[in-house]
Amino acid sequence: MDCIFCKIVNGSIPSEKVYEDDLILAFKDINPATPVHIVIVPKEHIASVMEIKNEHKNLIGHIYIKAQKIAIENGISETGFRIVNNCGQDGGQSVNHIHFHLLGGRSLQWPPG
Amino acid sequence: MDCIFCKIVNGSIPSEKVYEDDLILAFKDINPATPVHIVIVPKEHIASVMEIKNEHKNLIGHIYIKAQKIAIENGISETGFRIVNNCGQDGGQSVNHIHFHLLGGRSLQWPPG
Repeated sequence: MDCIFCKIVNGSIPSEKVYEDDLILAFKDINPATPVHIVIVPKEHIASVMEIKNEHKNLIGHIYIKAQKIAIENGISETGFRIVNNCGQDGGQSVNHIHFHLLGGRSLQWPPG
Repeated sequence: MDCIFCKIVNGSIPSEKVYEDDLILAFKDINPATPVHIVIVPKEHIASVMEIKNEHKNLIGHIYIKAQKIAIENGISETGFRIVNNCGQDGGQSVNHIHFHLLGGRSLQWPPG
């Protein structure tokens, strides 16, 4: 599988991990857009939001539950944060493995891109 | 409950609905940031990402599954889109009822706010 996030998940590409469990991995974005910028990915290769199946519902919920923990541990749970998922070309999706950007540490502006 | 999204859910404030089922409501944002800008909310009042409980995991997954359908029906599933959730002040959360912005119809830029 020639997927950079699968390689980060299996450890063949290093990352600065901030959280890991059986289902997901979270690591610091190498090009942070905000002072705190963490990427959360499922370990299972799901290409994008359009590829989520019914059997992944619990996984998507799990990502949001763990985003709370990651936000707390990185000091942005009280100041606030934005969670962004890009799907396809107009969304600016850069890696075809579904991922959730957790962004905080400054005031996020509107529109969101 | 003095929550604008609860009032939209119960119909006491009108909205331009694009999808509804037992669990969620989706409607057009009144101040669209993109040509297609739809807000997806759970009918249950959950204040923010920080208030999601384990029993809501399936609901959060359901929102993402239905976002696919809404994207298809609004012509942005192939061109792409961004899903944005704002939590707290730095995130720019404007209504304290968890909601997901589905944005498409133009190229979304980076950083996302």
